[in-house]
Amino acid sequence: MNAEILSVGTELLLGDIVNTNTQYIAKGLAELGINVYRQSVVGDNRNRLKKSMEESLERADLLIITGGLGPTKDDLTREVAAEVLNKKLILDESILQGIQGFFDQIKVPMEKSNHKQAYLPEGASAIENPQGTSPGILIEGEGKIVMMLPGPPRELQPMFDNHVKPYLSKYAQGIVKSKVLNIFGMGESTMEALVEDLIEEQHNPSIAPYCMDQGLILRITARAGKESTADELIRSLEEKVKARLGEYIYGSDNESLEEVVVKFLKNKGYTLSVAESCTGGLIAASITNVSGASEVFPLSIVTYSDASKINLLEVPKDTLTGQGAVSKETAIAMAKGIQKVGGTTMGLSITGIAGPGGGTDKTPVGLVHIALAFKDQVFHEEKNLLGDRNRIRLFAAKHGLNLVRKAVREQ
Amino acid sequence: MNAEILSVGTELLLGDIVNTNTQYIAKGLAELGINVYRQSVVGDNRNRLKKSMEESLERADLLIITGGLGPTKDDLTREVAAEVLNKKLILDESILQGIQGFFDQIKVPMEKSNHKQAYLPEGASAIENPQGTSPGILIEGEGKIVMMLPGPPRELQPMFDNHVKPYLSKYAQGIVKSKVLNIFGMGESTMEALVEDLIEEQHNPSIAPYCMDQGLILRITARAGKESTADELIRSLEEKVKARLGEYIYGSDNESLEEVVVKFLKNKGYTLSVAESCTGGLIAASITNVSGASEVFPLSIVTYSDASKINLLEVPKDTLTGQGAVSKETAIAMAKGIQKVGGTTMGLSITGIAGPGGGTDKTPVGLVHIALAFKDQVFHEEKNLLGDRNRIRLFAAKHGLNLVRKAVREQ
Repeated sequence: MNAEILSVGTELLLGDIVNTNTQYIAKGLAELGINVYRQSVVGDNRNRLKKSMEESLERADLLIITGGLGPTKDDLTREVAAEVLNKKLILDESILQGIQGFFDQIKVPMEKSNHKQAYLPEGASAIENPQGTSPGILIEGEGKIVMMLPGPPRELQPMFDNHVKPYLSKYAQGIVKSKVLNIFGMGESTMEALVEDLIEEQHNPSIAPYCMDQGLILRITARAGKESTADELIRSLEEKVKARLGEYIYGSDNESLEEVVVKFLKNKGYTLSVAESCTGGLIAASITNVSGASEVFPLSIVTYSDASKINLLEVPKDTLTGQGAVSKETAIAMAKGIQKVGGTTMGLSITGIAGPGGGTDKTPVGLVHIALAFKDQVFHEEKNLLGDRNRIRLFAAKHGLNLVRKAVREQ
Repeated sequence: MNAEILSVGTELLLGDIVNTNTQYIAKGLAELGINVYRQSVVGDNRNRLKKSMEESLERADLLIITGGLGPTKDDLTREVAAEVLNKKLILDESILQGIQGFFDQIKVPMEKSNHKQAYLPEGASAIENPQGTSPGILIEGEGKIVMMLPGPPRELQPMFDNHVKPYLSKYAQGIVKSKVLNIFGMGESTMEALVEDLIEEQHNPSIAPYCMDQGLILRITARAGKESTADELIRSLEEKVKARLGEYIYGSDNESLEEVVVKFLKNKGYTLSVAESCTGGLIAASITNVSGASEVFPLSIVTYSDASKINLLEVPKDTLTGQGAVSKETAIAMAKGIQKVGGTTMGLSITGIAGPGGGTDKTPVGLVHIALAFKDQVFHEEKNLLGDRNRIRLFAAKHGLNLVRKAVREQ
């Protein structure tokens, strides 16, 4: 079965709202193994809406339309679909009573315009909508299925989960399961080169790389008759990928780098304090967004001035004047300083040039020094990051967290 | 001029990501008065992508395509567009050098796959991409304009704002100008009640309230034959709104609360240090995201444990055990402590229960105490915030910044 999703609404064409409905439906269809080959958006315009529906129905077996089922003159989906499918619109008394009941409950008189929401194309059935006045509409025949769902997400989502997905499950192509591997510390092209043959050879499970704002992901997707088979298919490909990408994989599915770090620290009974310069609190803010972080994270200091590096972290003045605030030596002194002040197993520090100003030949924008004092050892990394201030700070923070992850992992 | 937007990517068809690019572009085109009649999404499939491009070019004068410009085998937009437009792909040496420079800068070898990003269809021009390796592509001819933009939003958005919009402005239908007023510290329904009559009466300029993640906004939009008329329309409505919402309006357009705070501090020659508990570095991270913040912001400490509050901020142990870590008294002691350690004009502190655990009857989840030591004065605010951990932390941080803004403003 192949499907298309058609959203109707001028507010989408104007960019007033993001099309979250299409994503919601697409995800649900993917879980059922139903292929979506095209998604479209048209405005509240009779001719263009009609043309779009006709084209979609030529290509697809299943057409899910969202929006345009409301009571106003702009809401054309019901009428245009009836025209395209060559069906009459017929008043459904029980739907009308339902709408009347809705208005009685909120003690508001029903407008005449709401009547049109009680009409269904001949042979169609209504899909219950406890969240609003407009039922969904289902028409099946001549090898095609058309479903019309209301536009407001709080009406659409429960209707899709409770009625549309169960109805479509008979067309599901077995089970489709996915696992996402989260990767940090390598570029997209490097990653792809390492797994290129797997991407090309594999069809079930398939493997696909994506570049997201938070880093790279590899999605492994398996189709099978039953869940345990799908799990086994995923597991065997995952092992191959892990053998190639190794420590660059930091977690799976929705796990963030900071969650992994907090989990590792808890497991080992380690504590961490952080001294940040260029990242200015981003590392602390991300760690403390993990519930329960206080068990392992007592202290962080943002030393944005030389004076605060000297006074609070005991960075020697000579190091700052000699090697500079952005140097390996300063990073190491900051890491040792915060480890001592915090009284923690680990002290992480980060100093760099986030830009846009402040870069020199010796210390260009994007240069970042990261140091980690871990018991009696010290680790250091130097990075040259690209992008605007925001991206440099974000990736510097992620490299800092990643250094902690790698150090704890190797224990 | 009528436009279509075509997004390319199987991750969109699978519902893995929301199509924010289309909204971003649609909004920008609406501001130029360029009509968008259709938006479409297709996957990384040569035949379906070709078919879609051909159909769009039959209907539209301007086709903006996003995604599929990366280095991998899945990235087909460049090749398929060249085929549809019947143009050869030609290596552009200067683009190749640019990509090589990108990899040199991050000290990573360039993969062979990146070469394809340096090819342009004959007669096309490249659109600069400082955020990544793939330039945008512009082809104009035979009454049609085709633009191809990279998929990652952090690459697409600046490219659209800095190159695409200025290029398309010659096709703009009259002038559409908007001004956004940023509001913090009141609820959506309260705000709406205060300006309800303006929303209903006004058509040009129109005024619309939105509830965004960062707070409330009011968007004023005017259409006019020339810019000065639009500006005048906006100015007169803006004055009415300001008379009603007063100090709750903290800025306009893309200005953030932290930018306003840094600007105010610079203007007054004041400095600020911050002691954070429940916000865990969010205030510091937002202030330091403002370029040049180091002039006014030398130090921030995240004291996530009682010990660090005592050792670093000199919060009396008795206050912590008597009144508790989340109390007015602790917040004030923290504010005075950080003002002293930082040697700054102002010391801001924040302590609260972000949840989900840790709440009690006396100190429920969402309770936040904020204090500001300002020269010899002390200000204090108590807030009861709603939502999950993430939202409570975010709004606590915003209330902290807003307290600084109000205090400096009143000087």
